[in-house]
Amino acid sequence: MEDLHVIGKSVRRVDALAKVLGKAVYSDDLVLPHMLYGKALHSSYPHARILKLDVSKAKELSGVHAVLTAEDAPNNKKYHRTGDTWVLADGEVRFIGDIVAIVAAKNEEIAEEAIRLIEVEYQPLPVVAYIKEALTADNLTRNDKSDNIAMSFNVSRGDVESDFEKAEVFVTHRYIFPSLHQLHLEPNSATAVYGLGKLTVYCGSQVWFRTRHELAKITGLEEENVIVKAMEIGGAFGARNEQIVPILAGLLAVATKRPVKFTNSRLEEFLATRPSVGMEIELSMAADRDGRLLSKKAKVFADFGAFTSDSDAVLGIASLRADNNYNFRSVYVESVGLYTNHTPTSAYRGFGNPQMHFALESLIDELAGKLEMDPTLVRSKNFIKPNQTGIHGYQVTSCGLEECMAKAKELINWDERIKNKPPGKGLGVAALVHVSSSRAGEPEFAGSCSMLRLDSNRKFTVFVGECEMGQGACTVMAQIVAEEFGISPQDVTVVMGDTDLTPFSTGTHGSKLATNLGNSMLFACKEVKEKLTKCIREHLGTGPVDIKDGNIVGSYTGEFLMTLAEGVERACYANSGCPFIGLGIFEPKTVMGDRTGYGHIAPTYSFGIQMAEVTVLENGHYTIDKLISVHDIGRVINQQMALGQVYGGVMQAVGCTSMEDLSVNKEGIYQANTLLEYKPPTILEMPELFGGFVETIDPYGPYGAKGIAECPNISVAPAVTNAIYNACGLRFDDIPVTPIKIHQKMIEAKGNKGKESPR
Amino acid sequence: MEDLHVIGKSVRRVDALAKVLGKAVYSDDLVLPHMLYGKALHSSYPHARILKLDVSKAKELSGVHAVLTAEDAPNNKKYHRTGDTWVLADGEVRFIGDIVAIVAAKNEEIAEEAIRLIEVEYQPLPVVAYIKEALTADNLTRNDKSDNIAMSFNVSRGDVESDFEKAEVFVTHRYIFPSLHQLHLEPNSATAVYGLGKLTVYCGSQVWFRTRHELAKITGLEEENVIVKAMEIGGAFGARNEQIVPILAGLLAVATKRPVKFTNSRLEEFLATRPSVGMEIELSMAADRDGRLLSKKAKVFADFGAFTSDSDAVLGIASLRADNNYNFRSVYVESVGLYTNHTPTSAYRGFGNPQMHFALESLIDELAGKLEMDPTLVRSKNFIKPNQTGIHGYQVTSCGLEECMAKAKELINWDERIKNKPPGKGLGVAALVHVSSSRAGEPEFAGSCSMLRLDSNRKFTVFVGECEMGQGACTVMAQIVAEEFGISPQDVTVVMGDTDLTPFSTGTHGSKLATNLGNSMLFACKEVKEKLTKCIREHLGTGPVDIKDGNIVGSYTGEFLMTLAEGVERACYANSGCPFIGLGIFEPKTVMGDRTGYGHIAPTYSFGIQMAEVTVLENGHYTIDKLISVHDIGRVINQQMALGQVYGGVMQAVGCTSMEDLSVNKEGIYQANTLLEYKPPTILEMPELFGGFVETIDPYGPYGAKGIAECPNISVAPAVTNAIYNACGLRFDDIPVTPIKIHQKMIEAKGNKGKESPR
Repeated sequence: MEDLHVIGKSVRRVDALAKVLGKAVYSDDLVLPHMLYGKALHSSYPHARILKLDVSKAKELSGVHAVLTAEDAPNNKKYHRTGDTWVLADGEVRFIGDIVAIVAAKNEEIAEEAIRLIEVEYQPLPVVAYIKEALTADNLTRNDKSDNIAMSFNVSRGDVESDFEKAEVFVTHRYIFPSLHQLHLEPNSATAVYGLGKLTVYCGSQVWFRTRHELAKITGLEEENVIVKAMEIGGAFGARNEQIVPILAGLLAVATKRPVKFTNSRLEEFLATRPSVGMEIELSMAADRDGRLLSKKAKVFADFGAFTSDSDAVLGIASLRADNNYNFRSVYVESVGLYTNHTPTSAYRGFGNPQMHFALESLIDELAGKLEMDPTLVRSKNFIKPNQTGIHGYQVTSCGLEECMAKAKELINWDERIKNKPPGKGLGVAALVHVSSSRAGEPEFAGSCSMLRLDSNRKFTVFVGECEMGQGACTVMAQIVAEEFGISPQDVTVVMGDTDLTPFSTGTHGSKLATNLGNSMLFACKEVKEKLTKCIREHLGTGPVDIKDGNIVGSYTGEFLMTLAEGVERACYANSGCPFIGLGIFEPKTVMGDRTGYGHIAPTYSFGIQMAEVTVLENGHYTIDKLISVHDIGRVINQQMALGQVYGGVMQAVGCTSMEDLSVNKEGIYQANTLLEYKPPTILEMPELFGGFVETIDPYGPYGAKGIAECPNISVAPAVTNAIYNACGLRFDDIPVTPIKIHQKMIEAKGNKGKESPR
Repeated sequence: MEDLHVIGKSVRRVDALAKVLGKAVYSDDLVLPHMLYGKALHSSYPHARILKLDVSKAKELSGVHAVLTAEDAPNNKKYHRTGDTWVLADGEVRFIGDIVAIVAAKNEEIAEEAIRLIEVEYQPLPVVAYIKEALTADNLTRNDKSDNIAMSFNVSRGDVESDFEKAEVFVTHRYIFPSLHQLHLEPNSATAVYGLGKLTVYCGSQVWFRTRHELAKITGLEEENVIVKAMEIGGAFGARNEQIVPILAGLLAVATKRPVKFTNSRLEEFLATRPSVGMEIELSMAADRDGRLLSKKAKVFADFGAFTSDSDAVLGIASLRADNNYNFRSVYVESVGLYTNHTPTSAYRGFGNPQMHFALESLIDELAGKLEMDPTLVRSKNFIKPNQTGIHGYQVTSCGLEECMAKAKELINWDERIKNKPPGKGLGVAALVHVSSSRAGEPEFAGSCSMLRLDSNRKFTVFVGECEMGQGACTVMAQIVAEEFGISPQDVTVVMGDTDLTPFSTGTHGSKLATNLGNSMLFACKEVKEKLTKCIREHLGTGPVDIKDGNIVGSYTGEFLMTLAEGVERACYANSGCPFIGLGIFEPKTVMGDRTGYGHIAPTYSFGIQMAEVTVLENGHYTIDKLISVHDIGRVINQQMALGQVYGGVMQAVGCTSMEDLSVNKEGIYQANTLLEYKPPTILEMPELFGGFVETIDPYGPYGAKGIAECPNISVAPAVTNAIYNACGLRFDDIPVTPIKIHQKMIEAKGNKGKESPR
């Protein structure tokens, strides 16, 4: 293992050149002959009955090829596994951004004019604007439901009541984590082409095959007649799991039999995609006086928006995952998914895990305060250990939490700084656990499949059904092939995502590619190596041969016989031109979660420690001075790219911790629909940032690797709020923490002086 | 075998709908953003020294991105296996149409203007205009050679001199078969894109991988960095074996780093592609009084034009192939390929075989006349038989010559008509032999490779590196898959030709696809069936299963378990999304021709009989009233498509027999450069036409099938000229036979009355 020549190196991204030179083709770059342009009419009411919808004037406009409403889309409600989505509003509109009609016209101006010519009469209905309201109010989010509860479940493990009785220290709090936008820079765009009974859609997606499936359902075509072609992707972060835009383009293409491009404006990205699931979490925890965590009780209220999307799965993760970091004896959770008149919510990097980590890691900090213990120590005492099984069934293999804590403390100089803390400065810590892949997708299977192909042109081509959305999967796959064959990653061509060319995949989520896809890639390499060496032996008149450092060498002599490239070319020609194809399947020994979510849902798990140092001024302004983000992701395949993931994830989390908020006012109207109002952080807001890795070599990951993708986003918020508390003695249970909130709390605190004080 | 459900049926072409609806995308249909347009400056001299070539004004023209001459193309002469071609004229021009410079500009008008601004000063050089001149004249076609002989060889089998001594009847004649244009309707067009070190060329080709190879050689790129993407093809007939246009587009794209489209005008198609090899053949034959053919002597002079292209192979075929129809005891041939200042010549449907068939089948007719035997009888007496080995080593398996003759005679009512022949009417007959595939390509191997893929979308996709150029290969592949799986051919998607997606192939020529590719397809089906049934058995909990009539059934019970589509989908998902891929290799037991061309060069051979009935008027005008074209192509896979091949091939042959001629005058100037002047036949010229098949079931063909593609074009000319002789007593040894030629000969004949008369 130790003589790896490419794995572990910061090799250049194989897609770097195309991207920096502007050669990469993104969805909206595509221009096809005779292409039409699609536009949508969105509801500006959060909730209203449609009394009249007249598209006749729009249809009559010259240059308009189609105007579609729910009436024209008989499978309108077949979109999404839950069957709870109207792609086109039927009878009523249920959120601002709900789509009332779509238009295809020969240019964008005509399409927009047609949108203006659509006559709609609305009767406004009462609005459910807040989670709290949803549970208690008489108002209904949707007139087809008798209450606002979309989903609810309780999970109990161990004897919670008894543990709470036995415990000596208790903490309890209510936390608010708002809905956030994933804010990928590239707006959704898709171009659909329909002809001869086949629909081809060019778009970016995290889930090519799911997008194919959804397109088939909604257009009524057989899946074999729908093709999704992969375009470059300008960020996803969960937002391209559920895509409306390819569906709209597909419907319009089928209706017009012309290519149709549909590109969202930034406003549409805010209103009519699928932002993250806002949550309110009531959390209680019980511990003994030594700081041993005994039990935890939680009530989770999740804002599903107007439809149930993947929010149901997000709520499941939020309810259970964070518990697996610690050896709780018992836990209880009561979870409710609620309908509100918001844009439906869904996946965002971390998939519900940041929400609960914010609550849990804040409350552990509070517990440490009560115990007058160092918060790093309380955590360390309770960490899950390698080869233990978590309370929800996760069979942990490698676990470097202790080492991550030690490294993070060293990087921030914790022990020294916490003792000699200058006034206004504060340190905070938070731990995290996440899956490296998880069972998901439709149909359900945990595996991945990769295809490697060697051809007469000496080319190594990887075909995988997953997506490169900037995370670097493309390069990781190239590195694995390069490692196995002793060649350069730049010599490997990676085709990711074309439903006609790549093997089926369940989609790119759950930080799964390095482990799941990586393992399958290893097996594909193995198969090709066997076939190639066999063919060389049998057809080129050599004895047994091996592949070594990009050459074909004698198995026993180690003697150079020919270069690998030459061997590939000659063997292929000797074999009647037949390519060498390896199909690698990785089927991890996971256990599907049971009815209560108990299961071993990932081949392995990643862990991490994040720390923050802040300065809080007396006027409430504060700066995040330093962030430490140390991760146990097993073998680091590419240090530079892994650090890229850390920087990006932390940056996003800094945004949600201190600035971003997709909130509505009491009329249900969004308070931020532009990048200026929504205020994501810029480079000026970035703290000094140290990423680090603890390389536990995991027995189930390829070369010992685990996933990194979502981890850095998971526990930045509690690390920062804990640091703010450490700096100024004020605890924030809702994010974003803005200077104005701090200032208000400072004023309140002065009124209550003495009730609570910082360590 | 007898319960075939799709093979043998006239199923609809799988590409029919796209073509008739105008949805098929041909090369020139492609429009890419920022695309430039290429144009060429051609020589209008058949032979001249370039004294000055100044492109500076052209380069200065606004909108011009590149002007390239031989100087800018260091690998200019690496094109083609023979290394005998200058893509861009270097120092001298050697034929009218020789390319002096190429230009890429932002539109066609500017490109044309740039062409006009190129200043060239020529010093005309003596011209070699005719084959006869080439051998004897002092003039040289090319100043880099010391004579005009491009190639020469002699082949002798048996004791020719002794057989001629023993023989009782002799005939001898000199035949002229002119150069012809393949006249595919779609002019050559290619669009090349260069970026990030990779060159992608979109074009039509019969030889995708050879085009890739040529592009790599001439641009200096590695083959792995060159991709040829298949566009629809509007006819090929051998003309897309050697392609200049993709090379020009490729050179310009590399030079400009912009997409470049290059589309030939019809004039360029005539002057600057690769028409067929014109030949003059001196033939003598010796027989005994019973009509047994003893020996044959031939001298073949072939017009290679200015460069040796595939003309060398064409001359090889012309020299040997036709002999295999008959049991000659000895043959001798002396073949010379000659340089002339014509456009270089190359492949055309039949690949040299029509040239020699014209001579041989005419001379056998003359022999029959001398023997006063029915010409069908002379042939039948001498036909090669099943399981015999021809004089050049062809190991004949199935051979239906006798049956073809019987069927043709019946169709034209030969015995009756020949006895009671009305004045001015005549009947003629000619036999033919051709390969079903032959060893060709670079590198040399005789096999084919097919890939079949079944995916989670239940789709059957065939990937093959050969081309669909209208002949119907696409449908034949779909029929084979459909037959093997009990599904409809319309459910099979066939991807033909994309050098990155399809297995390597040596190219589509030699009537090889039905046998070679078809067999490999069968093996690919077999592999997929095995993998699929194994997976269903192992993963879906069934016992052993078979595939029957599009369903999965129990192996022992025959009971229906699930549809095949369902089985594919479920098995794929159960197998972690892994597709089922079958790679079929067919390696026929052929024997490469030795130095003298002796070998068994095809897996099997096709045979046929063609007959004509003509009316010759006293003024020399004549009509071909009826053509009979009966072929032994083993199992007929698709009757309608096979008849389509017959109609098309016969139509082309009618053109060359009666109208077409790509001749030059003594200055070397082409006499026909437009469709109007070149005069191909229209539907008005088409005779009543009866195609028929004799289904010998060949042991080496898939389901017993052999190739048809080139056969119908091979022996129409001698059938017609033999019929003309039968009608008016005039024998024509040069085609096309025009009314004016007949009229002239009638006048001459009146002068020589009595010397020769019709049977």
